[in-house]
Amino acid sequence: MTQTRAYGATSASEPLAPLNIERREPGPRDVKIDILYCGVCHSDLHTARNEWQNTLYPSVPGHEIVGTVTAVGAQVTQFKPGDTVGVGCMVDSCQHCASCAEGEEQYCENGFTGTYNGPMFGGENTWGGYSENIVVDEKFVLRVNHNAEQLAAVAPLLCAGITTYSPLRHWNVGPGKKVGIVGLGGLGHMGVKLAHAMGAHVVLFTTSPGKQEDAKRLGADEVVVSKDQAQMAQHTASFDFILSTVAASHNLDPFLALLKRDGTLCLVGAPEHPHPSPTVFNLILKRRQIAGSLIGGIRETQEMLDFCAKHGIVSDIEMIPIKDINQAYERMLKGDVKYRFVIDMATLD
Amino acid sequence: MTQTRAYGATSASEPLAPLNIERREPGPRDVKIDILYCGVCHSDLHTARNEWQNTLYPSVPGHEIVGTVTAVGAQVTQFKPGDTVGVGCMVDSCQHCASCAEGEEQYCENGFTGTYNGPMFGGENTWGGYSENIVVDEKFVLRVNHNAEQLAAVAPLLCAGITTYSPLRHWNVGPGKKVGIVGLGGLGHMGVKLAHAMGAHVVLFTTSPGKQEDAKRLGADEVVVSKDQAQMAQHTASFDFILSTVAASHNLDPFLALLKRDGTLCLVGAPEHPHPSPTVFNLILKRRQIAGSLIGGIRETQEMLDFCAKHGIVSDIEMIPIKDINQAYERMLKGDVKYRFVIDMATLD
Ligand SMILES: [Zn+2]
Ligand SMILES: [Zn+2]
Ligand SMILES: [Zn+2]
Ligand SMILES: [Zn+2]
Repeated sequence: MTQTRAYGATSASEPLAPLNIERREPGPRDVKIDILYCGVCHSDLHTARNEWQNTLYPSVPGHEIVGTVTAVGAQVTQFKPGDTVGVGCMVDSCQHCASCAEGEEQYCENGFTGTYNGPMFGGENTWGGYSENIVVDEKFVLRVNHNAEQLAAVAPLLCAGITTYSPLRHWNVGPGKKVGIVGLGGLGHMGVKLAHAMGAHVVLFTTSPGKQEDAKRLGADEVVVSKDQAQMAQHTASFDFILSTVAASHNLDPFLALLKRDGTLCLVGAPEHPHPSPTVFNLILKRRQIAGSLIGGIRETQEMLDFCAKHGIVSDIEMIPIKDINQAYERMLKGDVKYRFVIDMATLD
Repeated sequence: MTQTRAYGATSASEPLAPLNIERREPGPRDVKIDILYCGVCHSDLHTARNEWQNTLYPSVPGHEIVGTVTAVGAQVTQFKPGDTVGVGCMVDSCQHCASCAEGEEQYCENGFTGTYNGPMFGGENTWGGYSENIVVDEKFVLRVNHNAEQLAAVAPLLCAGITTYSPLRHWNVGPGKKVGIVGLGGLGHMGVKLAHAMGAHVVLFTTSPGKQEDAKRLGADEVVVSKDQAQMAQHTASFDFILSTVAASHNLDPFLALLKRDGTLCLVGAPEHPHPSPTVFNLILKRRQIAGSLIGGIRETQEMLDFCAKHGIVSDIEMIPIKDINQAYERMLKGDVKYRFVIDMATLD
């Protein structure tokens, strides 16, 4: 075991503060990574504050990790010291269920092991990226091919990026498709960039009229203020796919009405309080679908990173020192960030 | 115009009674059909009683029609007098929108013309199958290849049959697939027969333990009492597809939990009061989907009739004289029919 400096919460009511954790020595298939940058995800906050009532303390969040390989186990074939790599939301899975066999480890039937807070459905604790280093099975390590000066902005791709990329790919977003992205936050701004790069006609839905200019800069072809019924009505039954990145409870019906026959509204955020129950007629009359999607598999995460490197895509970020993390959480709750906080882990010193 | 004897409602509060309507003379593309049998659908009752607040009176319900061709227009090529034919829920559509072009007239972007109560979204009245004859554009007439003694039991295929057949086909039900049918009524009993004939492993979900034997006779491999949590738990995450034929408001979550990754719960009934809002986590954690489906297109309805003729499939019916229709509605509301009432239209005399 190696003593490792980290930043985390010791209870739901305490702010995050410095603490020490123990990392395992790299086993034969392990990669040890010095963490350069770690993105700040809403899940970090939910977990630190035990808002899902499943937090194991001490809790060290962080699953948007970019770093440098410092050591590898004897059987590691894909990585060597000095490589720039990423780690996302998962660090292990059962590796033998149907979903794992298909490379969809995020849907592992035995529950994947989260990068922090242990296996998804309970078990031993794991500690995430708000720390100086991490040890991960090479199967769950991603190669980063972006330029050196982009690395901080690559970090959010590991969760916000793949969470939007995977459903966009699964529902065949591309040229000739009209695609909606609901919400312009950490996930939504990645959704806009990715759908645009995939060649789709991208419409950003927002409740804030002030976001028009920024959305267009990010790649939106059109911006619709979702509270404006006249604007919404102009898009009735015209979308192939709509991705809602909004976790807050909201009425799905106005978006369902915008889908063409056989269109899908995909949700990637789970609301604390249920959405109003969607109207079944909206589904029946055009064979529409409501779906959910969870991050993406390891193979697809690598594909996403390569796609982003090729298209020059990174997240729009605001870099913070680790000591500002508690304040960053408060600002994140107010949507006061364009569009993702990333911690410079050198500030842990 | 031809005076035609029928049975219908003159207001929401009156029982159905004999009345006369006027049918058009067959135009060049029209087929005139003497009606032999007409199935009784829940929509008939909703419309007669104005429960959807859109009924045009006098209202003559009936869209599960089997009859004999008595005359055809000069340009009719597919039918001749003496042919046995069917008419379902639609008698016309715009014929030029994208959905019509793909043979999915039920999703006509300009609204199909219902067999009764006019175009789906308002307009002139049309009168359905509780009458001695009907005049229909040949594009909306189906060929019936069943044996003569099966014709009464063929009638419900025109709505209950296609409403279940279409989603089963759309979501690729067949050998190797585990399929659930929720509810054993007019639609559900057809869903069981059809999914079984398609080669799937069929599980019938019911709230009534007494339906076990009958469900198995109809083709169910297993019967699960949906209120029994232990029974339900045995099927967690094992279904490829579940078709809910239950229109009453019910909790969707217990059925969503039974779907595999990428499985779909399809609803074909629209509840009067909303279902409890489905839990988004159930969708996200396995990329599950909730969908709706509406009857089927004309081409697919013909395919369904041919499939049923080939497999010897008809509806289980109880034949009634037209004078008993009001009593049949009351029994239908109590679920007291195995499994569809069919009116012997000879009793109109
Ligand atoms: Zn995250
Ligand atoms: Zn697995
Ligand atoms: Zn019907
Ligand atoms: Zn049309």
